[in-house]
Amino acid sequence: MIYLDYAAATPIDEQVLAAMQPYFAEAFYNPSAVYASAREVRADYEAARHQIAQVVGARPAEIVLTAGATESINLALNFASLALAGPGPAKRKIVTTAIEHPAVLETAKARGAKILPVDRYGCVDLNNLKRAIDDETVLVSIGYANNEIGTTQPIKEIAEIVAAVRAERSKNGVKTPLLFHTDASQAAGLLDLNVARLGVDLMTLNAGKCYGPKQVGLLYVRAGVELQPLIRGGGQEMGLRSGTENVAGVIGFAKALEIAEKKRKGEIERLRKMRDDLEKYLITSLRGCNPKQSSDSLDRHAALAMTAVVNGHPKHRLPNILNFSIAGLDGERAVFALDQRGVQVATGSACAANKGVRSHVLTAIGLSPELVDGSIRISLGRPTKAAEIEKLKLVLSETIHEQLKFGSQQ
Amino acid sequence: MIYLDYAAATPIDEQVLAAMQPYFAEAFYNPSAVYASAREVRADYEAARHQIAQVVGARPAEIVLTAGATESINLALNFASLALAGPGPAKRKIVTTAIEHPAVLETAKARGAKILPVDRYGCVDLNNLKRAIDDETVLVSIGYANNEIGTTQPIKEIAEIVAAVRAERSKNGVKTPLLFHTDASQAAGLLDLNVARLGVDLMTLNAGKCYGPKQVGLLYVRAGVELQPLIRGGGQEMGLRSGTENVAGVIGFAKALEIAEKKRKGEIERLRKMRDDLEKYLITSLRGCNPKQSSDSLDRHAALAMTAVVNGHPKHRLPNILNFSIAGLDGERAVFALDQRGVQVATGSACAANKGVRSHVLTAIGLSPELVDGSIRISLGRPTKAAEIEKLKLVLSETIHEQLKFGSQQ
Repeated sequence: MIYLDYAAATPIDEQVLAAMQPYFAEAFYNPSAVYASAREVRADYEAARHQIAQVVGARPAEIVLTAGATESINLALNFASLALAGPGPAKRKIVTTAIEHPAVLETAKARGAKILPVDRYGCVDLNNLKRAIDDETVLVSIGYANNEIGTTQPIKEIAEIVAAVRAERSKNGVKTPLLFHTDASQAAGLLDLNVARLGVDLMTLNAGKCYGPKQVGLLYVRAGVELQPLIRGGGQEMGLRSGTENVAGVIGFAKALEIAEKKRKGEIERLRKMRDDLEKYLITSLRGCNPKQSSDSLDRHAALAMTAVVNGHPKHRLPNILNFSIAGLDGERAVFALDQRGVQVATGSACAANKGVRSHVLTAIGLSPELVDGSIRISLGRPTKAAEIEKLKLVLSETIHEQLKFGSQQ
Repeated sequence: MIYLDYAAATPIDEQVLAAMQPYFAEAFYNPSAVYASAREVRADYEAARHQIAQVVGARPAEIVLTAGATESINLALNFASLALAGPGPAKRKIVTTAIEHPAVLETAKARGAKILPVDRYGCVDLNNLKRAIDDETVLVSIGYANNEIGTTQPIKEIAEIVAAVRAERSKNGVKTPLLFHTDASQAAGLLDLNVARLGVDLMTLNAGKCYGPKQVGLLYVRAGVELQPLIRGGGQEMGLRSGTENVAGVIGFAKALEIAEKKRKGEIERLRKMRDDLEKYLITSLRGCNPKQSSDSLDRHAALAMTAVVNGHPKHRLPNILNFSIAGLDGERAVFALDQRGVQVATGSACAANKGVRSHVLTAIGLSPELVDGSIRISLGRPTKAAEIEKLKLVLSETIHEQLKFGSQQ
């Protein structure tokens, strides 16, 4: 099997799993217990937090370890609830975008949110963002890299906009706080994670997307930012996430981030080369093949709607994601057909796929329902080899031609 | 080392770990993906849910898998937030007890709660409970078995009281709901977990306390009960706990519960015998040894306050917990001394131990601060052997005598 759905799930790296193993049945102690063995487990756990903090350029006390990115996002966005306690209507406290992961969108909607549109590449208009931040806004949440189309947002520039509003408020004596959260779940090992360089107040990371264990994540909380816990109890994680610590999971997360960061530069190059090669092949091989439409244009991001549209920004995009749409293709059927030929890819995101709903991301970038339904996401990962991409080219081209033929006969 | 702190943490059972292993790096797929391998992972995950449901006598759709007991409890108690939306003051929606785990107490206090006292054995007065439930009460949360002293509560009778109030409200046309939640974190493998027999609406269980992985838990949610999610997103777990599923963790949890249930009857007998033997030895060996106080009385639960007080109900108590207090003993110092002699036990609970605060449980059962500070919790587990208890007897007796002598000289 050729697995090319690394944006949905990554296998645990063998070094990561090896680092976790001792904490299952041997060093299994509750880190809050007082005997020496438990204190050692506590020390190992805190060392992992330290290591994670180093990767993102934060202080250890700024790293809140959680049970996954979805929880981290909910904790971050719960900040808006603080403001709910005050007077005035509890509306539109959060500014976010139409292409966020459901963890952001559903939570933002529940707390009151303004949802910004994106352009056809999935980019947020920064002037639009500036206008959207009003006196009621307490939190801006914009994802670092989109999980479906790979488009990245200019986090640093967004942070500067937020900082400017904050300075303006401060000058005018307005006490309403304003924080910037970014969901960086897809970014580890592919983008710069340094919170100081990015200028974010809150940042979500996910172990399960970077060759670490599932349901382990973190929320970076800049020193001085006061959040309200979602999960109360024993007071672990500086009171922000109670519950006995997932020692093995966090040890694994630290190892996974360390490896991801170490391999980052090389991987970006390697993945981009393979992805671009595949993209080029796909566009060339499909040009004019669609019985429904054909074109000779070479501008893949406009005229290639006639054959295959590549979704996401041509430049500001994760190096491992290739999302494309073909009119007349049944994406889900194509994914099944590819699976039978030994290739595992996705249609839309894994989250949305199971629910029979059209991708909100592809809809937001302006694709017609037909193109949304005809989309496939291929996401490369660390284990991906060039030979796999070569094999994929043939299988993909064959399958798509067959599927389009099949579709046109119906 | 002789580990006797199983109420704080349990090692993962080797069968459990073996069941989990394939899901780390091989069957690592996102259960929401559509290719066959991912659908197999989904099937395995749902089979684990089914297996767990069988152990607690519930339907699979009534089992919400979470990232640990603390999260489950917070989700259950969030029910009171639903009522917050309505008119009237948001006070005293929850009735709970003074000896609950901080996960219940802190969450209940944040949502508005009446805290019931307990007697010197840690038992709730059922008449008191009846009186405490008023027209504003929407949730009763009472733990099945206390983690510090082991006292168990009559869950079935409490469920009947709650049902009677519900019937009365229904008869009077009062629409305010009333649910009964029990935190059964310490109960797996030691008490009956059948939700139908118990009559609960909501029940929390914890994998990390029954030889399964840490930060895996569940909330049983009786069909028809509508909860509000704490963590929103992709809509996993019937919309009540979003986030990519912790497949390995849940597979492990199912195996852990299966083993716990299979071994339950034998273990109860075995553990109780060892615990009672230890308790008897402790009381006999310490009688009259305390230079501060002495007594010849044999009633361990009253006059033995003169030597060692055994905390918790003599009969309605977990078979694996022995919590005792000795006036003049420095419990924490004793735990360190025992650790140096190769015995790992706790003072109070692990959660409270790290914070330099006196156990709220021991305080609630009416112990003087001196006795609270002089308490030790020994909790036996499945790996505990009779030979370990024999060795413990000598070490414990020696250490306590030495510590008391040391204390009296200061």
